[in-house]
Amino acid sequence: MTEMNHYKADLRELEFALFEQFELGKLLKTNAFKHIGEEDARLILKEGYTFATSVVGPTMVSADRTGCVIDKGLAKAPPELREVWKKYYADGWNMLTQPESNGGQGAPQLLGVAVTEMMSGANTGFHMYPGLAMGAAAVIRAFGTPAQTELYATRLEKGDWGGTMVLTEPQAGSDVGLSTTKAVSRGDGNYSITGSKIFISGGDHDLAANIVHLVLARIEGAPKGTRGLSLFIVPKMRVNPDGSLGPSNDVVCTKLEHKLGINASATAALSFGESGQCIGQLVGGEPSKGAEPGEGMRKMFLMMNGARIGVGVQGLGVASSAYFNALAYARTRLQGAHPTKGRGDKGAVPIIAHADVRRMLMEMKCLVEGCRALIYSAVRMLDDAHALRADRKAKEADELEEYMGLFIPLVKAFTTDTAVHVASLAMQVYGGHGYLKDHPVEQYLRDARIFPIYEGTNGIQALDLVGRKLGQGGGKLIGRFGQEWGAFAAAMKERKGWQAEAATLGKALAALNTVVGKYLEFFTTGKADVVLGSATRFLEVLAKVTIARHLADAAFKAEAQLAKVSADSQDAQFYAGKIASARYFLRNILPAAVTLAEIIATGDSTAVDAPDGGFSLAF
Amino acid sequence: MTEMNHYKADLRELEFALFEQFELGKLLKTNAFKHIGEEDARLILKEGYTFATSVVGPTMVSADRTGCVIDKGLAKAPPELREVWKKYYADGWNMLTQPESNGGQGAPQLLGVAVTEMMSGANTGFHMYPGLAMGAAAVIRAFGTPAQTELYATRLEKGDWGGTMVLTEPQAGSDVGLSTTKAVSRGDGNYSITGSKIFISGGDHDLAANIVHLVLARIEGAPKGTRGLSLFIVPKMRVNPDGSLGPSNDVVCTKLEHKLGINASATAALSFGESGQCIGQLVGGEPSKGAEPGEGMRKMFLMMNGARIGVGVQGLGVASSAYFNALAYARTRLQGAHPTKGRGDKGAVPIIAHADVRRMLMEMKCLVEGCRALIYSAVRMLDDAHALRADRKAKEADELEEYMGLFIPLVKAFTTDTAVHVASLAMQVYGGHGYLKDHPVEQYLRDARIFPIYEGTNGIQALDLVGRKLGQGGGKLIGRFGQEWGAFAAAMKERKGWQAEAATLGKALAALNTVVGKYLEFFTTGKADVVLGSATRFLEVLAKVTIARHLADAAFKAEAQLAKVSADSQDAQFYAGKIASARYFLRNILPAAVTLAEIIATGDSTAVDAPDGGFSLAF
Repeated sequence: MTEMNHYKADLRELEFALFEQFELGKLLKTNAFKHIGEEDARLILKEGYTFATSVVGPTMVSADRTGCVIDKGLAKAPPELREVWKKYYADGWNMLTQPESNGGQGAPQLLGVAVTEMMSGANTGFHMYPGLAMGAAAVIRAFGTPAQTELYATRLEKGDWGGTMVLTEPQAGSDVGLSTTKAVSRGDGNYSITGSKIFISGGDHDLAANIVHLVLARIEGAPKGTRGLSLFIVPKMRVNPDGSLGPSNDVVCTKLEHKLGINASATAALSFGESGQCIGQLVGGEPSKGAEPGEGMRKMFLMMNGARIGVGVQGLGVASSAYFNALAYARTRLQGAHPTKGRGDKGAVPIIAHADVRRMLMEMKCLVEGCRALIYSAVRMLDDAHALRADRKAKEADELEEYMGLFIPLVKAFTTDTAVHVASLAMQVYGGHGYLKDHPVEQYLRDARIFPIYEGTNGIQALDLVGRKLGQGGGKLIGRFGQEWGAFAAAMKERKGWQAEAATLGKALAALNTVVGKYLEFFTTGKADVVLGSATRFLEVLAKVTIARHLADAAFKAEAQLAKVSADSQDAQFYAGKIASARYFLRNILPAAVTLAEIIATGDSTAVDAPDGGFSLAF
Repeated sequence: MTEMNHYKADLRELEFALFEQFELGKLLKTNAFKHIGEEDARLILKEGYTFATSVVGPTMVSADRTGCVIDKGLAKAPPELREVWKKYYADGWNMLTQPESNGGQGAPQLLGVAVTEMMSGANTGFHMYPGLAMGAAAVIRAFGTPAQTELYATRLEKGDWGGTMVLTEPQAGSDVGLSTTKAVSRGDGNYSITGSKIFISGGDHDLAANIVHLVLARIEGAPKGTRGLSLFIVPKMRVNPDGSLGPSNDVVCTKLEHKLGINASATAALSFGESGQCIGQLVGGEPSKGAEPGEGMRKMFLMMNGARIGVGVQGLGVASSAYFNALAYARTRLQGAHPTKGRGDKGAVPIIAHADVRRMLMEMKCLVEGCRALIYSAVRMLDDAHALRADRKAKEADELEEYMGLFIPLVKAFTTDTAVHVASLAMQVYGGHGYLKDHPVEQYLRDARIFPIYEGTNGIQALDLVGRKLGQGGGKLIGRFGQEWGAFAAAMKERKGWQAEAATLGKALAALNTVVGKYLEFFTTGKADVVLGSATRFLEVLAKVTIARHLADAAFKAEAQLAKVSADSQDAQFYAGKIASARYFLRNILPAAVTLAEIIATGDSTAVDAPDGGFSLAF
């Protein structure tokens, strides 16, 4: 059982998303990406699929069961991951979207995200290690000195070393400004680091010879709060100028957490400088480029924005495979009679024939495809910005990247809430068998449940949305969204067979608009709490409206193709499935978003106003 | 950590539900229950609380970690449960609601369910053992011969032996009619049983000297399907007429399942009669009372109705404790600043001060209280029926019990879906700490996830609701519901300060009514699949409308009390909390149920109509 690959992806579906819906082909004709041909891209996708299903996938269950262990202050990852790590780097999967100038393939993020969806979906716990290492490399490349890039980033990119982001402390979780980890200048440009950090993903392991920690710490005398935090490179083993390893840098793994899921990923508590021997250097050095103390959060955010999209992709990967596993099970599990067609010649019908099972499958399908479109469309904006820059249109590129920021909280929060929901629905399709460790869905549910929590809880994402993104630039991001989605809905109203769905989308946009107006009113009349208290629900509405358009867009493209293919072809069924996803979502899920928006607009403050004791006096 | 009690209950809340909302005091004055005084009942509740928190609760985590093991075909429960089992029976908790004529205390089910909520919430995995044993005893008392009652039921009631319900086979899950376990008459009134069963909760363990299995099997020559099934008493160890144990009855535990949760509960695969030595007897004997073959399902259903309510209570117990744990955490965990009040004197505020956390807590609170009211109101009907019978009003009693059947699928399905949701919300309140095994919420989530699956999946409950209960007696059950709830909503419209909420409830009832009419139309126009495909959503709507009334009713009772207590009293805060629950639910949750009903009424058949291949051609 544990040797088996459970990961399931449908290449036809990914090709549709990339080439038919988000027009990767066109992107590959721009100056920024013309070095990659469309056939190359299709081949890379297929090879990614092969790697995910044959190399990564088979380790998912066994690595979960083995877990990570700690021995004399050193953590060990599940042994089967060593080979996967080596092959992953040897095949250059981590360098797919890196610029050619850094030795990467310079592929679009859009292609990269499809590959990442598969790698991460095949074994979330494994993929966190290289994912975080590449995030650390990106921060060093962006803000580090040339020497730091040469010494650290290149080794992170080769897989010689692992990397982490080190923020959380026991008293400083979402409130990272409460961090007390200290940095004291040694007078030679280096700092002595002392402090305890927790919840460090990949914080210690034996997949690589060294680990490069990017640590938020407060330089002696720096102000309180987040603005007093600086970002340091703190290697696990000291590094000589030639890159060879020196002695231990006094970074000790004091504990590995015991968790509900992602057991293949070491979640470490780290103690820095317990013996006074932990040395770190400012990212960017001192006093060169961008190195002034207090900029730690800004630098970390580069990593965090990528990481937030990455967590959304984790959710997508797990949700998609959960759906396909449930689908495969529903096709083979025989139970009961169809209400009109009876039991068939096998004495019972496959449970996909039951309307309630079909409902669950269709709900999973449209949600997975909707989240995929949400993510891919956001990532496509990054590629478009890159293409604009290559054509010297920096201003348009900046604007597009800023607009994309509106979608980051949706990608992170909605996709991950959906992943938990889809994994749970998949279990329901399996029935009692899904509750057993014999099938992958229970692990999907356990693994997925961290996604709404880490990298900024989904509540924090919602606050980022209503507290920052909505008001940004005088509301220009949500304004642009309203224009784009409004134009789509207007055109949709003219489309035969979609008038009812178009009307719902129009209603949803109007309701959303009302909420945005109300939010402004609440904020300016001392009712910030009412906004903050409905932020999570607002995020849900905005995400569903966003997805509604993408699913409808996919359906329209499918309709156009459907006219060209033979009615009894496989493609005809595939495109019918795309149309069904859109119809199901717009008819069965979107209307509730309208209601939710109407509820938000009422500004109910029941939860905020209730006395603390009203929640219970017993605790 | 593992020695600690995590179970949290608020006696004030339970006393409100029992005495203020569902008027246990009045019930105790009826002829059926007058042997129990109100003070007795309050004392029993308190003692139940003490037992649950001091005896049962401390075993929850450790029994989960230890789990059940199998050794030479015999299963062992976690050793710490032996003492709990003994004390539970020694204190007579299992006999609380049993009739005095059987040696029980004859307490109302309403009091019993409050105690069960605590016992089960304190350690779900443990409580399943006595729960199932008492279910088996009830079936034998109802349908067995006097000799069977004397031999088996009394020992089950003393805790000398355990008991099970044995239905599922690998190919026969929800479709129990596919069972192939065989019974062949031995000519002496006994049968030889052969077959393999799976998913038997408490199917083997060492808490008691013997286990009485109630096994569905097909007598040679009996028809196919469920109507050919008979119910047999099949002890693990053979039983001599004096109750002493004979040799093994050829019932072998071939496997214990490895599960996501409820690891304290042994989920066994059992092989009956592999050596041809397994003997069973028909419940009711042959040919005495109710013993004709083919009545197995009817007998099993007596146990199953109780079990379905029992699973709802499991959900309630876990959800309630998850809520209180999250609440306690939210009061002590310090993070961040309040938007207007700042950080306070501790440098950060308890997270209960954050609007988004309050929203989660209030959502949990009103859902938990709503599910409690849903269950307690149903159970109260059973007590009323009993009281009516004691007053020789059998017809009214029958009618009330039949009406109560409408709520069983709601109790089972809605409460358990809610339990998973509430456990997940509780984890979200904890943030990253909730994902760790250091806190109980990850176990609550794991344990709760079986509830929507076993005892008839929630999909099966929805089909029972729309396929049986709605049409029963020409629609009289839902008709009575409409009258009662309609009258409540009409009266509510006159109530000061509740007009808006009353209007929503009225709209919800109207929408529900429309759906019921549409369902009749769909059923009679060959669109049964559309009904079956929306059944789960219909159940959700009906449950939310049911709960809306109960929460409003509680709020009105709280308002009446609020007028009598001092404004700065604890009770004032408590009652304000009850009012907040109702307001939050009716303003923020009920409106979506109206929308859901409107969606159902459109009869969308997208999921049913989509071609099988449209779900994906890859699997």
